Amino acid sequence: MSFQPYRPSSTGRPVRAVLFDTFGTVVDWRTGVAREVASFAAAQGFALDAQAFADHWRALYQPAMEAIRSGQRSFTKLDTLHRENLDEALRQHGINPEQVPSEALNGLNTSWHRLPAWPDSVEGLTRIHRHFIVGPLSNGNTSLLLDMARNAGLPWDVIIGSDMTGTYKPLPQAYLRTAEFLDLEPGEVMLAAAHNSDLHAARAVGLATAFVARPTEHGPGQVADLAPEGGWDLVASSITELADLLGAGTLLAKVP
Amino acid sequence: MSFQPYRPSSTGRPVRAVLFDTFGTVVDWRTGVAREVASFAAAQGFALDAQAFADHWRALYQPAMEAIRSGQRSFTKLDTLHRENLDEALRQHGINPEQVPSEALNGLNTSWHRLPAWPDSVEGLTRIHRHFIVGPLSNGNTSLLLDMARNAGLPWDVIIGSDMTGTYKPLPQAYLRTAEFLDLEPGEVMLAAAHNSDLHAARAVGLATAFVARPTEHGPGQVADLAPEGGWDLVASSITELADLLGAGTLLAKVP
Repeated sequence: MSFQPYRPSSTGRPVRAVLFDTFGTVVDWRTGVAREVASFAAAQGFALDAQAFADHWRALYQPAMEAIRSGQRSFTKLDTLHRENLDEALRQHGINPEQVPSEALNGLNTSWHRLPAWPDSVEGLTRIHRHFIVGPLSNGNTSLLLDMARNAGLPWDVIIGSDMTGTYKPLPQAYLRTAEFLDLEPGEVMLAAAHNSDLHAARAVGLATAFVARPTEHGPGQVADLAPEGGWDLVASSITELADLLGAGTLLAKVP
Repeated sequence: MSFQPYRPSSTGRPVRAVLFDTFGTVVDWRTGVAREVASFAAAQGFALDAQAFADHWRALYQPAMEAIRSGQRSFTKLDTLHRENLDEALRQHGINPEQVPSEALNGLNTSWHRLPAWPDSVEGLTRIHRHFIVGPLSNGNTSLLLDMARNAGLPWDVIIGSDMTGTYKPLPQAYLRTAEFLDLEPGEVMLAAAHNSDLHAARAVGLATAFVARPTEHGPGQVADLAPEGGWDLVASSITELADLLGAGTLLAKVP
């Protein structure tokens, strides 16, 4: 019997590609960044709370993209925004970035290229990949997502970075241009994300949606995105559970 | 001992990514297209020489792209050019494409998405992928290259289709924009191709080069590209031999 691709009633179409938000959904940015902040601080002789610093650095992410989404600034890739935000976060912590060797700053900036996968990500993606196209649908640039995939072993079929669509989520074109590169209708693409706002934007332009709960993305005190806040097509607590819901058997099962 | 990436004297830089021309270099377009032409002809009741038809269809490829390279026509993706060229090739063979069901034509057009790999391609790419970024550097569009990879089992890390660079080889921007998406210098990228003209264009903009001989790409009577015609950095008779030359051991060897 051949595999029947999942067809949500919201779109009425079979899903051909399952695309994933990455930061928070597939990889644990807070742990990964904090680990490298701690090494950086030790090497440079700074007293820094590594997790708080990771949170502050991440907090500058949306405002930096907003300048681009609003048209105030021309498209600038995420590596560059991260680097600018690193300087700003250091200043907030009383460190003048001009006093720090640029190789150390550039090295720390690429910590976003080396984020660890959540424990279920590689197995879940490997299973989903057997039956569906899998890829990121992330605000990361291509080289960042490529390094992340090679470092964490993520089995993407294709990487369409935000530098390829030339825009940032949650603007409609981020989702629609990605579907266009895949030559798929929006309803043939499912976004899987840990963030309700991302799913709302994807659904508004016709994508299928899956919520993957990541209740410790922001650490033990997380208050947002603990539960689905919309009638998403699928709701899972891990990417392996999402694979189950999509009918993408276990790794031991024979590929049909 | 850690792996030392190959550093050609032509560029003086370590190679980080080995990118491949696809049609002819990684996959055998003539066999793959002819096979589907034969099925199409049988189903539609046409008397067609399938290999000659494949050659005629392919012969319209460069002229179609030339209209775009010269600026006469705005960028149009290869699937669309292939579809237009299919109509033209049918007319050359005395068949009016308007008399053929469009599903049959569209189905045949996607034969380019299902081309078989040469026997050494998957093993060679798998070995090279352990130590280098691997991807296509092809005039194919992203969805074509993605389908080809899934069908033939090509282990690409990343797919940068010509619809992402918005241009066609051998124009310089095809090579340079690809390197830019990878955040690499041109000299950190190697093009592997069975076509001397492609390698000349890549070298002119600073890429490292490898010639992979495919003496039967055009069938038994092939006259062009039988041998390297330039001082390419590497010359191989297969992608597995290219893996050897790059120092990317056998599949049995332990990954360092």
